[in-house]
Amino acid sequence: MTLSLFLTYLAGCFAAGATGVLIQPGDWYRSLRKPSWTPPDWVFPVAWTTLYLCMSIAAARVAGLAGSNAAVGQALGFWAVQIALNTLWTPVFFGLKRMGAGMIVLICLWLAVAATLVSFWRIDLIAGLLFLPYIAWVSVAGALNFTVWRLNR
Amino acid sequence: MTLSLFLTYLAGCFAAGATGVLIQPGDWYRSLRKPSWTPPDWVFPVAWTTLYLCMSIAAARVAGLAGSNAAVGQALGFWAVQIALNTLWTPVFFGLKRMGAGMIVLICLWLAVAATLVSFWRIDLIAGLLFLPYIAWVSVAGALNFTVWRLNR
Repeated sequence: MTLSLFLTYLAGCFAAGATGVLIQPGDWYRSLRKPSWTPPDWVFPVAWTTLYLCMSIAAARVAGLAGSNAAVGQALGFWAVQIALNTLWTPVFFGLKRMGAGMIVLICLWLAVAATLVSFWRIDLIAGLLFLPYIAWVSVAGALNFTVWRLNR
Repeated sequence: MTLSLFLTYLAGCFAAGATGVLIQPGDWYRSLRKPSWTPPDWVFPVAWTTLYLCMSIAAARVAGLAGSNAAVGQALGFWAVQIALNTLWTPVFFGLKRMGAGMIVLICLWLAVAATLVSFWRIDLIAGLLFLPYIAWVSVAGALNFTVWRLNR
């Protein structure tokens, strides 16, 4: 792992994180019925900052392996898919206010994160471990998206 | 290059391309003053489909190299950055209707595409060549974004 690799993958996370800065939940989200276990608002930016750092470190570890093979290229491909889907969710849910379409994006994101986790784990144990908080958080976010969608039909 | 690598990177392109399907230009864009050289509407989906195929083939070629090194991890990192920024532009420009912020995203996208092109070129000539139409198109898109922004202040 080198600093340039870490910063490159972190730049991808900045693009994804920019959606959360530019597209705010607003009055629409505040007016929705939400489950009792909805995390407070301040948790989300803290969680995402932590997760973006973890996933950039994990990617830099895998990308920096010398003498690697196509398994690394496959794993980094899954990483690219998950960061694009991560960028897509906020505009669909908060921008378009389409909770069903947001659910589809989240399911695809969960699958992409799971694929990245498994392929990273096989290459580098620490990189795999660094993806565990991410899959846990996307599971919670998926349950929240689903519940909010059903409560506000 | 293998089919699974191609399909993985293509999945990232699907996430980016979904923004163009979900977030339509609509009446707002039609009402804007545009330069005489604006391409007709049908050109955009044709161009993007072609470019997404080219960039997925290029990524699969680079990712599939056996005995690769950190240069591949760096190049695929740039690819991940560009696909996230590609996903970000449509929600910012057409979703939020923020043409100045869209210009910033496009400049970042141009830089990420240029970095991917150069790093791919050094690893695999054909992969580099496959990025030439993309950098050309993003240059045109940048000029269009800038001109539309200035004409409609």
